[in-house]
Amino acid sequence: MYALAERLYPICRSITGNGLRETLQILQDEIPLTLHEIPSGTAAFDWVVPREWNIRDAYVSNSNGEKIIDFQQHNLHVLNYSTPMKARMRLDELRPHLFSLPDMPDWIPHRTSYFNDNWGFCLTQRQLEAMPDDTYEVVIDSSLEPGALTYGELTIPGESDEQVLLFAHCCHPSLANDNLSGIAVVVELARILGESSPRFTYRCVFAPAAIGCITWLSQNLSELGKIKLGMVAALLGDSGELTYKKTSSGNALIDRASLHVLRHRNVPFHTVEFSPFGYDERQFASPGINIPVGRLTRTPNGAYPEYHTSADNMSLISPSALADSLSAYCAIFALIENNHVYQNNFPYCEPQLGKRGLYRTTGGHGNPEQRQMAILWVLNQANGQHDLLDIAERSGLKFETVAGAAVELVAAGVIRKV
Amino acid sequence: MYALAERLYPICRSITGNGLRETLQILQDEIPLTLHEIPSGTAAFDWVVPREWNIRDAYVSNSNGEKIIDFQQHNLHVLNYSTPMKARMRLDELRPHLFSLPDMPDWIPHRTSYFNDNWGFCLTQRQLEAMPDDTYEVVIDSSLEPGALTYGELTIPGESDEQVLLFAHCCHPSLANDNLSGIAVVVELARILGESSPRFTYRCVFAPAAIGCITWLSQNLSELGKIKLGMVAALLGDSGELTYKKTSSGNALIDRASLHVLRHRNVPFHTVEFSPFGYDERQFASPGINIPVGRLTRTPNGAYPEYHTSADNMSLISPSALADSLSAYCAIFALIENNHVYQNNFPYCEPQLGKRGLYRTTGGHGNPEQRQMAILWVLNQANGQHDLLDIAERSGLKFETVAGAAVELVAAGVIRKV
Amino acid sequence: MYALAERLYPICRSITGNGLRETLQILQDEIPLTLHEIPSGTAAFDWVVPREWNIRDAYVSNSNGEKIIDFQQHNLHVLNYSTPMKARMRLDELRPHLFSLPDMPDWIPHRTSYFNDNWGFCLTQRQLEAMPDDTYEVVIDSSLEPGALTYGELTIPGESDEQVLLFAHCCHPSLANDNLSGIAVVVELARILGESSPRFTYRCVFAPAAIGCITWLSQNLSELGKIKLGMVAALLGDSGELTYKKTSSGNALIDRASLHVLRHRNVPFHTVEFSPFGYDERQFASPGINIPVGRLTRTPNGAYPEYHTSADNMSLISPSALADSLSAYCAIFALIENNHVYQNNFPYCEPQLGKRGLYRTTGGHGNPEQRQMAILWVLNQANGQHDLLDIAERSGLKFETVAGAAVELVAAGVIRKV
Repeated sequence: MYALAERLYPICRSITGNGLRETLQILQDEIPLTLHEIPSGTAAFDWVVPREWNIRDAYVSNSNGEKIIDFQQHNLHVLNYSTPMKARMRLDELRPHLFSLPDMPDWIPHRTSYFNDNWGFCLTQRQLEAMPDDTYEVVIDSSLEPGALTYGELTIPGESDEQVLLFAHCCHPSLANDNLSGIAVVVELARILGESSPRFTYRCVFAPAAIGCITWLSQNLSELGKIKLGMVAALLGDSGELTYKKTSSGNALIDRASLHVLRHRNVPFHTVEFSPFGYDERQFASPGINIPVGRLTRTPNGAYPEYHTSADNMSLISPSALADSLSAYCAIFALIENNHVYQNNFPYCEPQLGKRGLYRTTGGHGNPEQRQMAILWVLNQANGQHDLLDIAERSGLKFETVAGAAVELVAAGVIRKV
Repeated sequence: MYALAERLYPICRSITGNGLRETLQILQDEIPLTLHEIPSGTAAFDWVVPREWNIRDAYVSNSNGEKIIDFQQHNLHVLNYSTPMKARMRLDELRPHLFSLPDMPDWIPHRTSYFNDNWGFCLTQRQLEAMPDDTYEVVIDSSLEPGALTYGELTIPGESDEQVLLFAHCCHPSLANDNLSGIAVVVELARILGESSPRFTYRCVFAPAAIGCITWLSQNLSELGKIKLGMVAALLGDSGELTYKKTSSGNALIDRASLHVLRHRNVPFHTVEFSPFGYDERQFASPGINIPVGRLTRTPNGAYPEYHTSADNMSLISPSALADSLSAYCAIFALIENNHVYQNNFPYCEPQLGKRGLYRTTGGHGNPEQRQMAILWVLNQANGQHDLLDIAERSGLKFETVAGAAVELVAAGVIRKV
Repeated sequence: MYALAERLYPICRSITGNGLRETLQILQDEIPLTLHEIPSGTAAFDWVVPREWNIRDAYVSNSNGEKIIDFQQHNLHVLNYSTPMKARMRLDELRPHLFSLPDMPDWIPHRTSYFNDNWGFCLTQRQLEAMPDDTYEVVIDSSLEPGALTYGELTIPGESDEQVLLFAHCCHPSLANDNLSGIAVVVELARILGESSPRFTYRCVFAPAAIGCITWLSQNLSELGKIKLGMVAALLGDSGELTYKKTSSGNALIDRASLHVLRHRNVPFHTVEFSPFGYDERQFASPGINIPVGRLTRTPNGAYPEYHTSADNMSLISPSALADSLSAYCAIFALIENNHVYQNNFPYCEPQLGKRGLYRTTGGHGNPEQRQMAILWVLNQANGQHDLLDIAERSGLKFETVAGAAVELVAAGVIRKV
């Protein structure tokens, strides 16, 4: 995962254009992703797919001809979606087009102007302060022309038509945690799911944030009823603890599954209530879409200083954090895959477990061990109403323990799957 | 408000009679109140409107002819609703008819005997202790005769037929906080509402406690279905903090609105669960009436030492406390007036706010400010189900912020009122 | 109760056999119990009534002919339900059939092998450690033959067909707290209920744990719909505090009644959430039976060191603990008996209480006393929906206070029983 992020890091992505396209093509080396090109001008609910943005070069040079801000040095240096520009101007004319971070003087901010024609440069506060009154040459060799918005999608077919959505935004230029980390985790999770004959059908979507998600939703509107739940994957490589942001209802299966897994991992984690700000969980939660989509990140957006700056680079993320994030994702979807509902074949009193090898034969002892308690709980709750996660939560046992008991009871013919 | 209370203070009110009538006539100088005279003997559910009580004079004089208890000095000196009396008697005969407060030796208690024919005098403990064995002349120049129970009512028409009830009891003689303060606040609130073209129709009722409220309800039984919610106004002039007593369900709109306002005033306040004791909220909460009526007081009944004594005088209440109470009432009813439900015209994903001037045009920043969060919350929740108060409570934002966002979104054509 | 337990203590009971039968016959000296004999081989849901076990003698003697483990000394010395045995063997052959408690070296454990043919001896750790390599004579003079499982039942008819179940397991040999204490309390409670013309019909069942309960349920399946609630009575003589284990729903009437009583006894108590382990509450909570049955013990099973050992003897239980347990049971069922629902005959506003002698006649005082508050609460809540326990819980008053107010209000014709 780290190597994939490293390969993608240098590319200048945006919500459209060749950087985005190239990124998705690289993912095709990893998983059988299908690329979709949605033409500029296509309506997407209240939005329209914008003109495609491509950039070749951009710089500001001083009167000595020295490039003092240079896109070739770092692709964050250009205001993302800058219109083409070629002019000479004084500092006071240039100044409104320069973006820096006074509080973090060595970092370049990430700034965009997707839907408002503008141009600009992002630079460190030190660079800005070192710029004397001078006449500067400003060059942005970009294009904003009819083209397409590109997104990638992989459907992993399951036994059931019911779908699970995994969404990673992939529009940011050289920002490692946001969101090469999320892309890498979903790629790896997709590979694992693809090898596992899953119960649910998984749809893994790699699209630009906001407009990309909105475009994907508008292109798939008639299909959305099949999506049972989903997860937005982002910010999964930093050293922070995992943070789960709940769906709007707060008690959807994806919430219950994620929180059960996080509670039983024995490492600290955080929970955030839903709010209609953040990543694309806000689109899925809009009143007309209304799909329960959670979000599992490490440190959330805006909560770490390197967020949306040049300091969100490959040193901010680590293979071990990515692996830890992946393991949590795997556990959550394993739980969802195995979360069946059962019916007790012997609903009147407890069945005789001893004769089936499911209970100790000598009586009179104290409290039974967890496996035996799990067997008793599954029998007690197997009325065709409670799923195994309900039973795990109620009993205080781990999902795996309860699911293991259910497997034993099915094998003994005592319960059946509903 | 203080001046009105001062004007009303000297009058000897009761649940019927000229003092009550004069009080309501004085209110007619302030607001266009209609007075209703319900004849003695009129049935009011399980009750009957009693004979009208009027009093001209009352005293106890000693064998030297000195008036040692004198109604002319303080109208609390007579047991309210005392039957006429003229007799000479020894102290031991008089003693069962004397009421004092041993623990508060300088205060005269307020005592009544509305539905049980009796006579008596209230006096300070010091007065009582100073009374030697003697033969006393007892005079109560009162009348209990067929007449009427008087109440006043003002209906402020609104856009909607749905009604809001404001109730202030006005039966107490010279007690300032209980309830000249409540009368004054409702008078002022009625004046403000009357100038505001409100959405709801407001019914402001000034009636004696208990029997007056019961009589008003029995006279208006067929109309009660229109009353959506209400508030009992009492004890609003003392220096204590505001105290909201919930309706029986505890989560009616009047509860939610009052608690939201109180929580966001940034001064301490208290909440009391419903109980069927106190003021006339108990009548509104009776099983056959069942209207959600809250009660907003400062220090509640029985919780301050001056309660129902001569120390509840004009020095117990202050203009600033009355003004503070009025401001809370205004905020609560402003909230209720503005608490609309909206439908999102663009329910699929977020609408494009930037092109409507509702969102910053440069992207990449951290968390948005409250106005922007309010806009996102209203959009997310505008599904025709949640009122603005729901949205304010869920988002943690102030109602005004959320309502302001709704106004902007309506102006932009993004949402519509349901 | 203590004397009855003392009489029953020496008998070697099991889930079938003469010890069980004799125990129930002794109970017939106390209450008019009916004994039922269910033949071996009778199906009971997934189970079958086992062969009847009887034992006359059992011992292990050493090569000197000395009995070193002797059933005549303590009936716990034999593994309950041991098959007949007569053999000579070396210690290493005997060892797998010896059960002791290494951590509690002076106590004999209680061990059983009801459904798996086996034989064995239970002994103290000190006895075990004192056994040299030797050749031992092993004698178990028992029989396992077709017979019957015996249980006893007493039905106390009530005004209503609705039934309340009291269940005490009675299969354990010489264990005092588990469950001679439970048997003794239910016998005494049955005597008290039998003298009281109860509202509900009470079914008091004394049966072996697990298989006895299952057999009773299978014999009464068509009748179970009449059982509204129940209680498992066990472990009621030790010095620990009372512990109530909730039903599966946790808010059944038996839960609410028990917790109300326990909260108002002014002594510490414990509450345990339902789990499908423990005593026969687990059978009643199985998905096909699903009767709300609580369990009131003192220290629960497995939570005291003497549990299922020879130290659970007559010195572990006391008359005062038994009496305290009985008083709690009596209070709980008195509450259930008196927990009526009422309808207010005067639902519009408060009725005039003063004229009915239900309210003080002089007005103006502070807060009323509990009796008056109970009257107001009952009137307010008497809408045919809330039972008295609801009203007690909501008002914070004791059930007895609220029930007393209801009696007064019925007498005055103000409310009526629904």
